[in-house]
Formats: sequence, structure tokens, C-alpha cells
Amino acid sequence: MAFSYPHKLSSKLTQISNNRCFDGEQHYYRHDSAATKTPMSFSIYLPDDALSGQRCPAILYLSGLTCNADNVTHKAHFQALCSELGMIFIAPDTSPRSDADNGIDVANDERYFVGQGAGYYVDATKAPWSEHFNMQSYIADELYELLREEFPIASIGIMGHSMGGHGALLLGFKFPSKFVSVSALSPICSASEAAWGQAAFLEYFGEDKALWDESDAAKVIEASGRQYSSILVDQGAADEFFHDGQLMPEKLQKACFAADQPLTLRYQAGFDHSYYFIQSFIHDHIQHHYQMAQL
Amino acid sequence: MAFSYPHKLSSKLTQISNNRCFDGEQHYYRHDSAATKTPMSFSIYLPDDALSGQRCPAILYLSGLTCNADNVTHKAHFQALCSELGMIFIAPDTSPRSDADNGIDVANDERYFVGQGAGYYVDATKAPWSEHFNMQSYIADELYELLREEFPIASIGIMGHSMGGHGALLLGFKFPSKFVSVSALSPICSASEAAWGQAAFLEYFGEDKALWDESDAAKVIEASGRQYSSILVDQGAADEFFHDGQLMPEKLQKACFAADQPLTLRYQAGFDHSYYFIQSFIHDHIQHHYQMAQL
Repeated sequence: MAFSYPHKLSSKLTQISNNRCFDGEQHYYRHDSAATKTPMSFSIYLPDDALSGQRCPAILYLSGLTCNADNVTHKAHFQALCSELGMIFIAPDTSPRSDADNGIDVANDERYFVGQGAGYYVDATKAPWSEHFNMQSYIADELYELLREEFPIASIGIMGHSMGGHGALLLGFKFPSKFVSVSALSPICSASEAAWGQAAFLEYFGEDKALWDESDAAKVIEASGRQYSSILVDQGAADEFFHDGQLMPEKLQKACFAADQPLTLRYQAGFDHSYYFIQSFIHDHIQHHYQMAQL
Repeated sequence: MAFSYPHKLSSKLTQISNNRCFDGEQHYYRHDSAATKTPMSFSIYLPDDALSGQRCPAILYLSGLTCNADNVTHKAHFQALCSELGMIFIAPDTSPRSDADNGIDVANDERYFVGQGAGYYVDATKAPWSEHFNMQSYIADELYELLREEFPIASIGIMGHSMGGHGALLLGFKFPSKFVSVSALSPICSASEAAWGQAAFLEYFGEDKALWDESDAAKVIEASGRQYSSILVDQGAADEFFHDGQLMPEKLQKACFAADQPLTLRYQAGFDHSYYFIQSFIHDHIQHHYQMAQL
């Protein structure tokens, strides 16, 4: 369908798909990333206000281990409320990926919590990962700027799930001037102290524990101090990964207390780690970001 | 999580999964079907009222070509409203399927609109399909009775998408005493006169055109006459399969007119055949079934 932005999308972006959805459109795009040296793709929901060129508040959603943009776009059920409020919702991929068609071979690991699908939103310093795994630079610099150039975005809040919750807290507190709001669903709160995160950081950073600390959300929050008037975090109380000690919301709570950072941390009885949990509470998160964007 | 029905689920049902979702739970079950002589699976969303044993109105949702229960359960976004209204939502599979673990080999066809994933909600009469492809008996008799025995269901409305819209209209008008309401999203309205349906019916019924007519939703409605105080149908106006002539809502409109059957047929500008279309309008369908169930 034809629509007019204030300016045309540049040749940097190739549209993969476009589906009418509520009073807006769900788009997918592909572009060549300098940060990852691979093609990268993302989904973006644009309400009609944005399609007609009006600047709208946006949410950047970072996904969890094994996911790409499809999981949240299909299963999180954000479109109805984003349509109603006039919000843009953007979902990038979780890592660079091999692309046989373009002769691009990206390192991988057979464990699902390291390698492709597990970029952890950090810039790896150790080979073979350092060649392509630069997800912090990709998300916080390259994609961030691309989105602001190409779409009518008024402001950006950041949220995520699990590894993406780690990413949202980490990037939100590393780059508080870029984001107006932060929230997370069952985040990995202290990646440097949990088994999944340790396995990934050992691969991406080697034994350089200073880099581990700089990539641990709770430690970054404690070091950065208060940055947002409030942050919202939901944790399923029946989440097996929470009970396994991978998520550690208590570390986030301690860090926020130490940093004087207001935190609303909710334990949701009976809920697990799945997208059924996410869809049950994402509307509260969208409303949180919407309200923060009005301030 | 523990919950108590008025009676325990029988040994006919094996629970595959159980996820808390809004004020209710999304379950999947598997059972052995006598109609299809295969294991069959379905998803069911149970609001807390149902979980505590209170009878609730239910919607039986029939999916389209290539789908199983996952597509609608993940992508249609029905759970929030079903939780709010206290409605049960059931999604069966679209055909019997091979099951190597149990030594079950079901006929198939390399074309996506015939064979596994394309049962058309009819009882096939021609080999090799007649052995397992008995989806009318499965849905309208076996599963229908099983659901009423095992879950606290007050009444059942039937709806579906595409091939499942055909199924909802067909079974709704063949068995009006079983269903309290009917609706459809982009249904195949006259399968015997469209290329997909003709290819399937030739396989399932051979040249017996009387069976074709008895399995054509528009023809069955015209023959059965008015059965419901109203039926609701949405059709995306930008749907490529509509423009290809596979769906033919105009045949449904003529049949309902001839049968004195009230029909609300809405053409939705800009919308295609996808689950982005479904999620945009399914709330109106859930409300339709909810209101009919109160009468």
C-alpha cells in the first residue's frame, strides 16, 4: 500500500514484507550492517499516524536466546495497543547470522546460549566472535541512528525479554541519553554471575573480568546511578529459569536500591518464561513506555 | 499448576503443555481418534472460571490450509479477550497426520491444498484418503463429544479462517443443533467451485458431484435455510486469494439471501489473508459468539 513519509525510505533499507494490522502496518526490513558486517533484519509496527509522517514514540524490543524478530512480532500481541496509542514497535534480531546466499559465514556454537541467536547485546573482543558479534554497537549506534533517520520517531524507550531484558537494562543504563524509558520481562539481571551469561562472556571476552562487569546489567546500574524516574520489571514466579538462578531479579533489586533507581519489580504468580507470560503483561509495559514518552 | 474440574480429565486425554496466560491457562492435549485412526492434538484456552469448574461458552476455531493448532494459538491474539469475557477457545488440527513413533502412515500430497494440513472438514470416500481423512466425523462428532465430556462447556460456537471458514460455515449449517453461533474470516465459501477445493474434492470424493455439493458451504446454507439469527464474516479487501477467486464471498452472500439467513459480510480495506488480518478482527468475532451464547 502506498503511504508517504516526510521523506522516502533510503536505499539502505529493503522491505521484506508489509501487512495491514489494526490501524497500522507491520513491516519487516533488511539492511547491511557495518557493525556486524552481515545483513540484519528487523520488524517494525507503524501506526497510521507514523505512516502519515507524524512523529510517534517508539519502543525498541530486544528478544531472548534463540529468538529472532518473529517471536515477539507473532506472539507478544503488541499490535492492538500500539495501534490504539499510536506507538511504533521495533524488534531487531538477537545476533548476526550466517548468510550462505551472500557468502557470509558467522561463527556459531552448538549450545543455544552462545553464538547465533545469543549475541547478548555486547561487542565481543575475542576471536572468532569479535569479527561479527558487535551487537551493542549495532543496536545502540547503527540501528538506533538508522531508525531515527528513516522513520518518524519522536523518542525511543527500550525493553526486552530474558537475554533481551539484560540488553534493555544494560543499554538503557549505558546510554541514558538515547532512551526515555526502560522495562524488562524476566531479564537476565546479572549475566556475569549466571551460568548462561558466564558461558557466553567467556567466549566473547575471554578472562577479562572488567569486560564481564561492564556487560552485567545490575553492576552497570549500580555504577551509573539513577537514570530514569522509574523502571518496570515483571518476573514469572513459576519461571523455571528463575528457579534455576539464571535471572536473579534480587541482584537487580539490590543494584537499584544502591543506585537510588526507582524500580517496580512484580512477581507474577503462576507464570513461566514463555510468550504466554509476555502477552499477559506486555500491555503494562507499552503503557509504561507511552507514559514516560509524554513527560 | 493444580486445578480442580467438577470431574477429573479422563485417561482419553494426555496433556502436552500448560501455560498460565492472563487470567487462565493455555493447554494442549493429545488423544487417540477413532474417526481418523490417528493421534490428534488440539489447544484449549481455559479462563479461570472454567478452571474452577464453572461452565463457560466456548468457541471452536477451525484453521486454514497448512496450519495446525499452533498458528491461531500463537498468532491470533484471542487469549486476552477470552480471559476477560470468560470464554473457552479450542483449536483442533486441520487433518490427520503421519506419526512415525506410533507406526502410523497417513496419505499425503505434495500440493499444500490437498492431504495433510488440508482435511477440509469432510469425510473422504475415496482411497487412499478414506482410511484417515474423516475430519467431519472427527470435529462434529468425536471431538465435539469429547470436549463436552471433559471440559465445563456451556455452549459451542464455531468459527474458522479460510479452509477453516469453509469448515465453520459447513458444519455450522449441517449441524445447527450443535452450535449456537457461526462466524468466519476470509472463508472458502464455495469449495466445489474454486480451484483449491476442486483439487481436494476430486481426491477425497472422486467424481461424485453430489458429495461435492454436500461439502460446499454456500450450497449447504442455501439448502438448509436460515439457522442463526446472524452470522459474521470478514474478508480482507487486499487478500490475494480473494482476488484469485478461491474464496468467493459473493456466493455466500447469494446463498444467505436465498436462505433468508441474516449475514454481516464486511470487506476490510487494505487487509490480506494473514494472521495480521485475523488478529485485527478476531475480537469482533469473539464478541459475536459471546453475545450469541447469552441468548
